[in-house]
Order: sequence, then structure tokens, then C-alpha cells
Amino acid sequence: MKVGFIGLGAMGSAMASNLIAAGYAVTVWNRSDAAAEKLASLGAKVARTPDRAAQGDVLHSMLANDQAVREVFLDGGLLDAMDPGIVHVNHATISVALARQLSEEHAKRGLGYVSAPVFGRPDVAAAGKLNVLTAGDARAVDKVRPLLEVMAAKLWPMGEAPERANVVKLAGNFMIVTAIESMAEASALTRAYGVGAADFIELMSNTLFASPVYQGYGKAIAEQRFAPPGFALPLGLKDVMLAQEAGHAERVPLPLAGVLRDSLLQALADGAEGMDLAALALVSERRANLDQRNRS
Amino acid sequence: MKVGFIGLGAMGSAMASNLIAAGYAVTVWNRSDAAAEKLASLGAKVARTPDRAAQGDVLHSMLANDQAVREVFLDGGLLDAMDPGIVHVNHATISVALARQLSEEHAKRGLGYVSAPVFGRPDVAAAGKLNVLTAGDARAVDKVRPLLEVMAAKLWPMGEAPERANVVKLAGNFMIVTAIESMAEASALTRAYGVGAADFIELMSNTLFASPVYQGYGKAIAEQRFAPPGFALPLGLKDVMLAQEAGHAERVPLPLAGVLRDSLLQALADGAEGMDLAALALVSERRANLDQRNRS
Amino acid sequence: MKVGFIGLGAMGSAMASNLIAAGYAVTVWNRSDAAAEKLASLGAKVARTPDRAAQGDVLHSMLANDQAVREVFLDGGLLDAMDPGIVHVNHATISVALARQLSEEHAKRGLGYVSAPVFGRPDVAAAGKLNVLTAGDARAVDKVRPLLEVMAAKLWPMGEAPERANVVKLAGNFMIVTAIESMAEASALTRAYGVGAADFIELMSNTLFASPVYQGYGKAIAEQRFAPPGFALPLGLKDVMLAQEAGHAERVPLPLAGVLRDSLLQALADGAEGMDLAALALVSERRANLDQRNRS
Amino acid sequence: MKVGFIGLGAMGSAMASNLIAAGYAVTVWNRSDAAAEKLASLGAKVARTPDRAAQGDVLHSMLANDQAVREVFLDGGLLDAMDPGIVHVNHATISVALARQLSEEHAKRGLGYVSAPVFGRPDVAAAGKLNVLTAGDARAVDKVRPLLEVMAAKLWPMGEAPERANVVKLAGNFMIVTAIESMAEASALTRAYGVGAADFIELMSNTLFASPVYQGYGKAIAEQRFAPPGFALPLGLKDVMLAQEAGHAERVPLPLAGVLRDSLLQALADGAEGMDLAALALVSERRANLDQRNRS
Repeated sequence: MKVGFIGLGAMGSAMASNLIAAGYAVTVWNRSDAAAEKLASLGAKVARTPDRAAQGDVLHSMLANDQAVREVFLDGGLLDAMDPGIVHVNHATISVALARQLSEEHAKRGLGYVSAPVFGRPDVAAAGKLNVLTAGDARAVDKVRPLLEVMAAKLWPMGEAPERANVVKLAGNFMIVTAIESMAEASALTRAYGVGAADFIELMSNTLFASPVYQGYGKAIAEQRFAPPGFALPLGLKDVMLAQEAGHAERVPLPLAGVLRDSLLQALADGAEGMDLAALALVSERRANLDQRNRS
Repeated sequence: MKVGFIGLGAMGSAMASNLIAAGYAVTVWNRSDAAAEKLASLGAKVARTPDRAAQGDVLHSMLANDQAVREVFLDGGLLDAMDPGIVHVNHATISVALARQLSEEHAKRGLGYVSAPVFGRPDVAAAGKLNVLTAGDARAVDKVRPLLEVMAAKLWPMGEAPERANVVKLAGNFMIVTAIESMAEASALTRAYGVGAADFIELMSNTLFASPVYQGYGKAIAEQRFAPPGFALPLGLKDVMLAQEAGHAERVPLPLAGVLRDSLLQALADGAEGMDLAALALVSERRANLDQRNRS
Repeated sequence: MKVGFIGLGAMGSAMASNLIAAGYAVTVWNRSDAAAEKLASLGAKVARTPDRAAQGDVLHSMLANDQAVREVFLDGGLLDAMDPGIVHVNHATISVALARQLSEEHAKRGLGYVSAPVFGRPDVAAAGKLNVLTAGDARAVDKVRPLLEVMAAKLWPMGEAPERANVVKLAGNFMIVTAIESMAEASALTRAYGVGAADFIELMSNTLFASPVYQGYGKAIAEQRFAPPGFALPLGLKDVMLAQEAGHAERVPLPLAGVLRDSLLQALADGAEGMDLAALALVSERRANLDQRNRS
Repeated sequence: MKVGFIGLGAMGSAMASNLIAAGYAVTVWNRSDAAAEKLASLGAKVARTPDRAAQGDVLHSMLANDQAVREVFLDGGLLDAMDPGIVHVNHATISVALARQLSEEHAKRGLGYVSAPVFGRPDVAAAGKLNVLTAGDARAVDKVRPLLEVMAAKLWPMGEAPERANVVKLAGNFMIVTAIESMAEASALTRAYGVGAADFIELMSNTLFASPVYQGYGKAIAEQRFAPPGFALPLGLKDVMLAQEAGHAERVPLPLAGVLRDSLLQALADGAEGMDLAALALVSERRANLDQRNRS
């Protein structure tokens, strides 16, 4: 099976590496060359233009956001240059609106399209342990399943309409940001009564909330360690806004999302551009003026 | 060591049973007799008035709420009838205001006071696996530690000011309700795109959020099983309001709590009085008019 | 007609003065003496204890809040010392819960009870131009109408259940605080684009929102003049919380009130204890970090 | 002076009519012909293509939204076909992002650009009594001032950056929607206590809030008259979202806007597509389940 892979950031590189390691012939393309060179050293063929990566059986893409996907596939014309009969597996966290548009544009051209956003950070991707959502035409999904299984702890099928996988990814990220804001507000409250965030969060993340999200972000909050970002705060805001957009399109109010959006915006206004989502804790502390209080 | 236990609801009965099983001489009192009879059959001495249970080394109480605690200890005069030198271990989920008041009233009378609210449902209490928060004078806490260890998976010390344990309990319950509302809103969103709540929640509660709270309430949401209540919705509202009160007293804004309060109130307006907190899912569905939509 | 008046703050003094000026025989009582002396100079008889003011046909009271009303009428025993057949006209902004309780307690004792909260500041009260809400038994209201007309631009009858007038007063104050928060947020937005608050508010308060609330608080925001307070910020928070309580009792969610509560709390955390409600503008500015931004 | 006018909806037609009545030679263009014919009968010259309306001294446009403005001026190429030296006066309520883009695109081509959004409904436009915001290069504004004065009760200059007038318009509309939601929530609260919306709103809109917005929408709420729409609910949602977008671009949190967005979305989910913004009252009533309650 001939496989292409477009978009070699930390996630894409790890995913493509696993495909190579599993024995697939992989042709890669990336906007900048350095990442592609590294994949070449593992055995990938490097394409100089994206259409060269799209001549085969399956094309994976893991681009940063709506804009990058639009630029490559729509404005850049890649859709019109793809091998007929190829299946495009889109791993990006994109809007449901773009997912719907891509689904239509692929169908018009007789191209297969599978939405396959993932949960997991680069180290999880490197270990081939991602949770991979899948949505798309059943035959297309069947065709790419062996490839996805190389990357995944588990595949989670969400039906035939591709945007379903995207809305699930956005809903999941919305839940992540809510969990962090929840720890942030709760810690500010307990801290105002003299209980340190570390004590409070150790309790919570080892009992009722003993799960990766609470443990990971909880640790960062307890240690006041907000950089370098694992999940960059501006990307969290982007995803909350995409969840709101998805809600708007189908008229689903999301009251928690409104709170998250404003807390994230306040974090950015206060200079958290380069910080992790855990920096929401700083907003809760400033809102209650905790630092000032402790000083006096 | 002579031990008293007041308040024999499902939680209190299980906790007192474990003290008896561990060999302590336990005198129990409860407003209604049936629960006390059951403890008597396990070896407890039954007191006809609360003051009879308060003649010993330690008095545990596990009453329903602020009002019940006030009625027994303050208005009912129990504080003035307690054995001098006794330590009162209060397990109830009460307001920080009442915790502060009780702390003062005990101190005035030379009585020991330890706040020891717990996390865990009756089955966890029966198994002696509660997570027990403790806050109070160090010597008083030391004295009651062996008793608490009988009930606990682990003790979590929160310092000397008793209200610290209470604010931590309230902050934890606030996080529980937030987690449920988060699943409720996210499920409504994915359902509007055709993804069933069961599929979505199975994914979330087995991956990023693989923890008791998400798994327990998530299952109830996925199965639309809202009665009988494990954590009754009106009690969840009570605790969110106590968290807001605690925030108000120390000027800590809690934007998520405002959202929770209104969703819970809407649930009650819609008739969820006898339902579990998981019934927040119904509010998110009605807000998006999902039933109507699916019918048409 | 013999009239008593209890509670001689700025509002009560102005209202009592108008009753005296209209020719009524007025006996006044106040916790501290200075205010009573001033009324004496206008012709009032000064009572040394509240019950002496309650021997006549009508007793007006204008106390600060629930606590003050409870202390005088319930805990202080005034209800049991009032002239049988007297009608008590309660002008205070109190909770609906207390209004209901007072209504019952008066009824038990055969005393008349009229809720008559007012809209208007001290200067409006002095001019006899208040808007006076009335609710209570029709005969009781009829009896006190001539007195109320002395103080009022207009009477606004709200039915027989006394708490109706109180809930209307609280709903009105909720609308006032919302209007201020609305100007605060909108001004922060326009200011971030370089439009001064003064320009923006001059436009709004002279066109679409040409009304006393927007003009009064708008002027304060435009001029950044937050002290001395006209409507003190902590009292605004108290009233928003009473509106929430009233909503809770009848299960009416008030999403805007949740936002107001947190903004007001943040204002207090930032030191606005002695400021006017208009200081909500400072919270919106800090939330967007406008000062920092303009400095850089 | 030769004047063009593009976009002849209810507002545009009224504004163009006033220019004709004031003696200006006006060439009009509209997507559909009927509206243009009516203007022709008043003396306008009808252009068959938009560029024919753009050959003169000033071009006014009053198009529906961002999309319509983009289609005509950017995608449709009108910008490239305009008379050099013409000043374009854009009356539409558009995003600040589009306002900034248009400002740049006009500047690149040496064309004048003035943002001039208006407050006022069609009847106010017909009477030449609009409140007209202006922002743009001072000479351009000076040139078009006589034309704007024909339409206006008053001009409100907001500086040279065109988007300033747009952000003020959006902030104003945000305040309008907040005022309506405020009446909606407050009326639901008082109605739960038995006070009719009509009584409550008559009080508020004749005293503290005696201004056009509260009186107009208040009357609609009191009379439960939600169609035909004066200000259509979906347009209100659009404007709240544009205010949020403007806040996002400059990192200004707008907590009230989050509440408004969800209430409006819930209204649409419940079928208020064709209703007026006043239909927010229905959402508050459903949230408290008032109808059900009254029935039982």
C-alpha cells in the first residue's frame, strides 16, 4: 500500500514514523524541509510538492488548523491533483463547517474522505497509543483501518458523516478546558481559606478525578508551571470557539463554553500567549486578587 | 475508648458499623429509631437523647445539612451537655460559616472540634474506604486518628482551621457538578450531530477522563437513568450554593458555579426534584430542543 | 392620624420630613439619636424606644436590610408591642423570604402589613417624588394611601401578597446593576478600539438609553468618578443576591445575575468596598487589562 | 454633487429618498429591481450594475451584512470599478475585521472610506432623524457631512479609524440585547410571584428606564407580541457574535455577551427564527417552566 503523509509537526512526524516502522512505503511532504529530512532518515520518500504525496492509496494529513487545511487542499488546489481513488485521512482538529465542506468536495471528485482526529500528545503518538476517532464512508474507513491501527491504542468509530468525528474531538477538548477551569476556580477558593493548591489538587486528582487530564494539568497548577506549553492556551481558546461554532450551527447552547472563552481571553489579555492551558489558574487567582491579599 | 455517633443515615450507619466492627464501644443516637435498632443489632448501645451519646472520648456526627447540625448542637443545646474534654468529629457537608461558628462555640466550652467531611458513597463507607478530610487542632486530630483510619482509605489533613476541610469538601463537590454539566453540554452537542451520548461518553470516560466521577455519572447519562438518585440533584444545588457562599465570604468569584446554579435550578423547575445530578443532561437537551428536533 | 416612623437614614429622614410637612403628627425613633434630633426640630416627637413609635394608626419603617428589620421587629420584640389595629408600612429593600415571614407574623397578631419599597435616591425622597410600590391587604393599603401619596410621584400597586412589592423592587435593582455592567463591558470594548468611554456613553445615554439609570451611572463611568457612592457597590451585590434567592425559592434561573454577582465580587476583591456601583467599569477594564495595554 | 446609493432595503430606501428630497442627483442600484423602481419614481436614476452607481462624488451603501458587502465590493469587483476620488460611505453593521479590511483596500486604491453605521429603525430613517456614527479620514468625513446631515438627527464623530464607528455600533446593539434579556429575566422572576409582566414593565419603562429601548421592547414583552419582528432575533444573535468577535480581536472579555448568545441560541432552537428580539422573554419563561406551573 502506498501512503502519503502531509504535515510533519510533532504529532504528524510521530504518526508517520510509526507507519514507516510498520513497513509502509510512505511519501511525506511538509511546508518546511527540516521535518521531512528527519523522516527521510527513517526511510520516507520526500515529496517536493504536496501533490507528489497524494499519488497512492491513502493520504494522511495532520495540519495545524482550518487555515492550513484550506490553504493546502482548497486554495492550493491539492484536491484537484489527488490520485483518483485515493482515500484522504484528515487527522486535524478542524471546524465542523470545514469538515462538511471537505466531505462534499471530496465526494464531488470521487475521492474518499475519512475524518480521524486523535486524542493524545506527541509522546503518546510516538508510542503508537493514540485514541483515534473515525468517521466516514464505511468502505473508506475499512481501507485505512490497518494504517490507523498502527498509530492507535484504540479506534473509536463515530458513524459515516465525517464531521461527527470532528464534533466529538471538539466536545472532548471543551471538556478538557472545562476540567482545567474547574480546578482553577476550586483551587482559588480553597487557597483563599489557606489550603495550598498542591494539597487540594493532590487529593482530587488521586481520588474522584484520578484520570490523565486532572493529573496532568493539576500537577502544572499545583507547581505553578505554565511554560513551555503542552496544550498552548491560544489553541485551547481556538477549540472552545470551534465548539461554540459547532453549537451555533446546530443551535446547541453551551453555557460553560461562554465562561471558558472569557477566562481564556482574560488570560491572553494578561499575557499568557505562550503559556499552557493550566495558566487559567492565574486568571482565577487574579479575579480573587489572591496575590494582593497574601501580601497584605 | 468510648465513642458516640449521631446521625445514622446511609453514610452514618456504615461509618458507625465499621467503628463497632473494629471493637469500639459505640453509643448511637438518631432522630428516628429504626436506624438505631439496626446498629444495636451489631452491638451499639442506643441512646434515647443525643446528650447520652456525647458522654465519652469522641463524638462523631454525620447529619444531613446546616439546619440539622444547628438544630441538634446549637438550638437543641447539645453543645452545653457534652462531656468536657470530648472531641467532636463533624463529618457533615456544611457551610464554612457554620464550621467557623461551631469551631468558636466548641473552643469557648473547652471542647475539641475536628472537621472531617468525607468523599465516598454509602458502599464505599461500608467498605471502610472513604477519603476523609481532616482539619482541627493537632492534638484533637491525633486523638481521633485511629477512629478515622477505621473508615478511611486515606486521611487528608488540611490544617488546623476546621473550615478548611469544609471548603475543600465544597470545592470538590463543585468540581463534581462541573464535570457532570460538562458531560451534559458536550453530549448535547455531539447528539445534535448524530453521535449518541453512549458512544461519546464511553470514549471520554475510558480515556482522558477515566476516573470514578466521569465513569459513574457518565454511565447514568449514557443510559438516561436518573432515578433513584445516588447524589440527589437538590443536594448538588445546595452544595454549589454553599461553594458560592464560601466564595462570597472571601471574595472569590466562581463563574462556573453561576452556570451550574442556573442549570440545576432549571432542572428543578422541570421536575427533577427526585432525580440524580446526572439529570443535568436533560437540561442541556431541552436547552437545544433535541427531542423536538429528533421527532420532526 | 397618628403616625410613627422608624429608621432615619438619608431616605427615612426625607420621607418622615415630608409627612411632617404635610401636617401629620409623627413620632420618630432611630437607633442613634442625631437623626432623630433633626426631625424633632421639624416638629416630630422623638420616641426613646421603638414601641413608643408604634402606638398610633400607622407605623412606617425604613431600615437598612433584613438584619436590621429582624433585630427590631422580630428579635427585638416590637411586633408584640405594637398597637393593635396599627398598619405597618415597610419601605425597606428586604428578601422575599423575610417579607413572607413578616406578613405571616403580622397576620397572626391581627396587625396590618403593607410592603412599600421605593425607587429614588434621597434627593428624590426629599422632593416627595418617589416611585412607591405597594402590596398588601386592600383595606390596609387604602388606609395608608394618603401618607404614601405625600412621598410619591406615583404609587404602583402590585397586589395583595406583600412579597410581590419586594420581588419587584429586587427585580428593578437587578435591572439597574445589569444596565451598569452592560455599559461597563461595552465601554471596555470600545475603549480597546480607541473610543473614549465619555464619547461612547454620551451617545448611548442621549439616544437609545436616554433614561435616569443610564445617564446617572453613565456619567460616573465616563468621568471615572466612583466615590462617594450614590448606590454603594456592596449593597448592589446584596440586592443581586436577594434577587437570586428570590429566583431560587421559585426556581427561576437568572443567568445575568450570575455574571453580575461575580463582577461585583471581583470589584470587592479589588478594593471597591467604598465605591459606587459604577465601579463595575473598573472590573471590565482590568479583565481586558486596558490600563496595562495603554501604558505599553 | 453626484451621489450613488447601493442597497435599497427598508433602511436604504428611506435614506436615499431623503437625499433625493434634499435635491441631490442620486443614482441607485439594488440586487432586485422593485426597490429601485420605487426610488426612480421619486427621481432617482437607476443603475443596472453597481459600478454605474459608483461614478460620482460619493457612494453610499447600506447592505445587509458582511457577506453582502464582501460580495459586492470585494468578490464582485466594485472596488476596482469605482470612480477615483469618490468617497464610499458604508452604513452597514459589519464586523470590525471587515471594516479594517475595507479601510485598507480603499486606501490602496486611493478611494475615500467613511464608516457611518446608524441607530434608528426605518420610520426614523424616513423622518431623517437617524443617529449617525462617523469614522474616517477627516477630509472624507467633511466632504460627506452635508449628505449625512440630511439623514440625521445628529452626527456622532468617533475618530479617524473607520472600525471605531463599527465597534460603537456593535457595542450599542450589545447593550440593546442586554436590556431586553434583563427585562426578560426580571419579568420571569416577578411573574413567578404573581406580578404580570405588563405591570412590572409599565413601572420600569416609565421610571428608571424611561427610554426608547426599554419602552419599545418592553411593550412587546408585556403584550407577548413577538412577530412581525422589528429587530429580528437572528440578526440580534449575529450582532452579539460580532461584538464577541470584536472583543476577541482585542482580547476584551464580555461575560454578558456569553449569556446573551446562549439565550438567543435557545430561542432559535425553540423556533424563534421569525420573531423579534423581544422573544427572549419566552426563553426566560421556559427556563423557569412558568407555563407548566401556571397550568398545574
